[in-house]
Amino acid sequence: MTRKIGIIGMGHVGQAVAQQIITNGYADDLVLIDKNEAKVGADALDFEDAMPNLTSHTNIIVNDYRALKDADVIISALGKIALTDNPDNDRFAELPHNREQVQAVAEAIKASGFNGILIPITNPVDVITALYQEATGLPKAHVIGTGTLLDSARMKRAVGKGLGVDPRSVSGYNLGEHGNSQFTAWSTVTVLDQPIKKLAQARNLDLDQINEDARMGGRYVMVGKHYTNYGVAAAAVRLANVVLNDAHEVLPVSNYREEYGTYLSYPAVVGRDGILEQLQLELTDEERYKLRRSADFIAEKIKESK
Amino acid sequence: MTRKIGIIGMGHVGQAVAQQIITNGYADDLVLIDKNEAKVGADALDFEDAMPNLTSHTNIIVNDYRALKDADVIISALGKIALTDNPDNDRFAELPHNREQVQAVAEAIKASGFNGILIPITNPVDVITALYQEATGLPKAHVIGTGTLLDSARMKRAVGKGLGVDPRSVSGYNLGEHGNSQFTAWSTVTVLDQPIKKLAQARNLDLDQINEDARMGGRYVMVGKHYTNYGVAAAAVRLANVVLNDAHEVLPVSNYREEYGTYLSYPAVVGRDGILEQLQLELTDEERYKLRRSADFIAEKIKESK
Amino acid sequence: MTRKIGIIGMGHVGQAVAQQIITNGYADDLVLIDKNEAKVGADALDFEDAMPNLTSHTNIIVNDYRALKDADVIISALGKIALTDNPDNDRFAELPHNREQVQAVAEAIKASGFNGILIPITNPVDVITALYQEATGLPKAHVIGTGTLLDSARMKRAVGKGLGVDPRSVSGYNLGEHGNSQFTAWSTVTVLDQPIKKLAQARNLDLDQINEDARMGGRYVMVGKHYTNYGVAAAAVRLANVVLNDAHEVLPVSNYREEYGTYLSYPAVVGRDGILEQLQLELTDEERYKLRRSADFIAEKIKESK
Amino acid sequence: MTRKIGIIGMGHVGQAVAQQIITNGYADDLVLIDKNEAKVGADALDFEDAMPNLTSHTNIIVNDYRALKDADVIISALGKIALTDNPDNDRFAELPHNREQVQAVAEAIKASGFNGILIPITNPVDVITALYQEATGLPKAHVIGTGTLLDSARMKRAVGKGLGVDPRSVSGYNLGEHGNSQFTAWSTVTVLDQPIKKLAQARNLDLDQINEDARMGGRYVMVGKHYTNYGVAAAAVRLANVVLNDAHEVLPVSNYREEYGTYLSYPAVVGRDGILEQLQLELTDEERYKLRRSADFIAEKIKESK
Repeated sequence: MTRKIGIIGMGHVGQAVAQQIITNGYADDLVLIDKNEAKVGADALDFEDAMPNLTSHTNIIVNDYRALKDADVIISALGKIALTDNPDNDRFAELPHNREQVQAVAEAIKASGFNGILIPITNPVDVITALYQEATGLPKAHVIGTGTLLDSARMKRAVGKGLGVDPRSVSGYNLGEHGNSQFTAWSTVTVLDQPIKKLAQARNLDLDQINEDARMGGRYVMVGKHYTNYGVAAAAVRLANVVLNDAHEVLPVSNYREEYGTYLSYPAVVGRDGILEQLQLELTDEERYKLRRSADFIAEKIKESK
Repeated sequence: MTRKIGIIGMGHVGQAVAQQIITNGYADDLVLIDKNEAKVGADALDFEDAMPNLTSHTNIIVNDYRALKDADVIISALGKIALTDNPDNDRFAELPHNREQVQAVAEAIKASGFNGILIPITNPVDVITALYQEATGLPKAHVIGTGTLLDSARMKRAVGKGLGVDPRSVSGYNLGEHGNSQFTAWSTVTVLDQPIKKLAQARNLDLDQINEDARMGGRYVMVGKHYTNYGVAAAAVRLANVVLNDAHEVLPVSNYREEYGTYLSYPAVVGRDGILEQLQLELTDEERYKLRRSADFIAEKIKESK
Repeated sequence: MTRKIGIIGMGHVGQAVAQQIITNGYADDLVLIDKNEAKVGADALDFEDAMPNLTSHTNIIVNDYRALKDADVIISALGKIALTDNPDNDRFAELPHNREQVQAVAEAIKASGFNGILIPITNPVDVITALYQEATGLPKAHVIGTGTLLDSARMKRAVGKGLGVDPRSVSGYNLGEHGNSQFTAWSTVTVLDQPIKKLAQARNLDLDQINEDARMGGRYVMVGKHYTNYGVAAAAVRLANVVLNDAHEVLPVSNYREEYGTYLSYPAVVGRDGILEQLQLELTDEERYKLRRSADFIAEKIKESK
Repeated sequence: MTRKIGIIGMGHVGQAVAQQIITNGYADDLVLIDKNEAKVGADALDFEDAMPNLTSHTNIIVNDYRALKDADVIISALGKIALTDNPDNDRFAELPHNREQVQAVAEAIKASGFNGILIPITNPVDVITALYQEATGLPKAHVIGTGTLLDSARMKRAVGKGLGVDPRSVSGYNLGEHGNSQFTAWSTVTVLDQPIKKLAQARNLDLDQINEDARMGGRYVMVGKHYTNYGVAAAAVRLANVVLNDAHEVLPVSNYREEYGTYLSYPAVVGRDGILEQLQLELTDEERYKLRRSADFIAEKIKESK
């Protein structure tokens, strides 16, 4: 029945998601939804003006929630507050504003009869993912936040640069909240087939520096362009493709973990039926402590947001 | 060896060009240049944060003109004035500002030893293409503006929509200045294997309406999002790929025509050596008149800009 | 819900179709069917051994007709007799053998509950397409043979080479039977925005020679490798993508024309619902005569084959 | 200056390499070389007949060694003996035949002035890689055999299937000779973020069975279709892309290891300058023993082949 993806929210992130999908021919039908009619209409027309010079065809549908009924995947990219309003880059500054919108969007999605996989990017993503799941009534395994798939990419970029290795050849995860309490679980990171901790010692690498580099990467992007979009868009598109292809890839995404009683980022096997299996990492005591703390923070925020 | 592309100017257009190239793996090395160091650095890092979740690898080099020495293609996307400053959407309002920048950039390109194909998108593109050619000293056939490749795409989109046909199945050209004096050469347009004029009669299509639709498309996008980028980015990337692949495709782009004594958009065969052959269309008297008028307008503007 | 394609017959052509689909990530689920269990199992495993080094994931299902129930597209690539058995390259030499298989396959497809678009490549393709349509009971507009999409490509290749132009910049059609009675409708061919006949005169091009070159191209490939596959596979995959994307492209494919009372190749607008609109070409008297003759030949063969 | 790849030997493997490159648009220029003029000419024409229906353009050059002078990568796919002649699937049965050809080809490559990266697939690949390096005089780091990149893919496929996980989410290596003495270094294999040995115990997985499954995979393909091609072609194309993109990926390929005094498969960081860094795995005693034995076997065969 061909591939159908919905994108809700056409700010910097939604636009980047849409451009990647359209120029790569990843979807047959693409539903773009935004409260700003003029803006989303403009983007749709701009994409249609691109199409004669692209190598594939995508049908674009604008602002029609009913068209989401048979979508395979919906990506929520709404929200986003410019840095000027948010000096501390605190993702929770966005919560009051985004929560309300999410509630309305979730009801519209539910009303459409949508029965696929919902992928929130909207921040604070773990809280928003929980809100979406509750409000849509979709199974927990079918609502998956991009979470630390982006933070893990940043870590891989920083580690890869430090060692002259493609980030795809670095494995490992950032865990927990996609926010200030996230952390790199160094015990899971290997590169050049060695645990990073050992390698760091041998090569005089400063992991704290790399950690800082990864963490400050987002900040640096924020300061430089007042938003971040390509990194998180690539994460969301990859996640969507893994769902469409039923690829069963292991990805660190925001999924509901029973033992933590909350959504948080932790690697899972992902496929067409959403979260297929949750990994059981062998973390250090310190990492387990950090993860618990991060989980508690998210759970608290979810409770507050109700 | 391997594909190397430079992008100068990382505003909305340059960003869209870069995202399309990176997410499709069209280049091996990509040089990004912008006067706003923080901004271009942020984009580069954001793209690198995307890479672990993409399917191909691109090396990104920031603000180093020397790296352009062995580039295959440079795309100039600098310039751009927001709609708020430009109520009539007059591309020449940008000229004084862009001319100066182009002069400086052209000198830097020349100093780099660049010997490839230069593709200006910067508006007013026909004038800017001429300025670039003169200032860089590159052969005329090696400096090619995107010109009406975008306007032609808009025409195809409008015709295609009117008839329920993919715009790729519409052939024909918009000619002349990429600006207010451009026009659809309807005598060149065929669809469903019929001249559009004949088909329009049979199906009660209003070509003036379609013309208006195509022309106002850009305006509609401008009003909705205060800039246009995806359409023109796709045009530039297609042109760049035709050069890299040495594809010999026929494209309506801004190229220097001896008989008009100026750069203007007119279809040509494009390949690795730039403009390989210029077409000779059989236009109607009215179209020839419009083209001459458009050419004179461009030539006048080029003279003024010196 | 994601893209599902079936391929029936994994000889040289089916293999090439499968490799193009898998390495480009065009399908999510791919059903491979062949009477030679060991052979199709070997191909499937070989493709799965490729996958860890590819950029996308495809689920491969082997020899299960039930899996075709919800396929979007089925491509029939069964049949094929080596040149050694067929000195005159007569596609009808294959008919007795292929007809029987097609009958059995069509019944199995029907039994599966398949309700998508069926694309026969199997030769003689116009006759086989008619047989498939009748035996499956699918709507005529949902059974589409690749027909002269390949012959047209060969013509474009030959014209493009003769003029130093990308074959994508050549427009026009070969019509009628995908077989000895097909012909280039030169009145439909334009290149460099001129009717080929006029251009041929100006440039001393010998159209008969080009025609021969196009026609003998297939023969030359046959002699050199004892089969042809990449050209026809690319035609079938493009047709399948046009269906999946609902692209509404105009393609010369084998479709049922009421006025000729038979399947034959003639351009049509193709989309998710199969043949959406049939073109009405303005052919010369000679071309109309050739097409009628070709149609009568196909109709006769279809009658004989019952 | 754009991407140029040469393929030497257009049997089943060379064809699959060429089809993957052309249909994905990975190269701008592709040089196809084969002793069978009629065959390679037929393939080239067949690919050109495909091109009008593909999304990218590739220039194909046939049987011209001089065109390899400025190629970025050459892939040697010559050789191959059908299973019927080789009941034990002994890759060394091919050696006498392939050695002679390789010598001649290497001289022709050298004479062309080629200065890029040479990627042999030809079996026995480790011996052939050594012969190529010596005969061409290219730096050792610039001649890289596909080696156990294929065997590792087979292992990942088998492990992935056993655990319901995408093979891309399995990490680890098969080492040594691409031949009977290769083995999975289980100590390097992790999946679901756990060492496979531990996981195997917990889940009752039989690693010997998986090993057998991986090893017999190739055999099963061989028996089913009398050759293998897609798996190894995908390995070669990935390796070529890593070189072109300068991606610095870690890949288990055949590279010269000083401490073993021979070419053998062992993971290395690969980029535009070939082998950039060689990993130092922490193998078990048994694995080290197997690797040494495999290395000695290769070294012995290289000596014999001189």
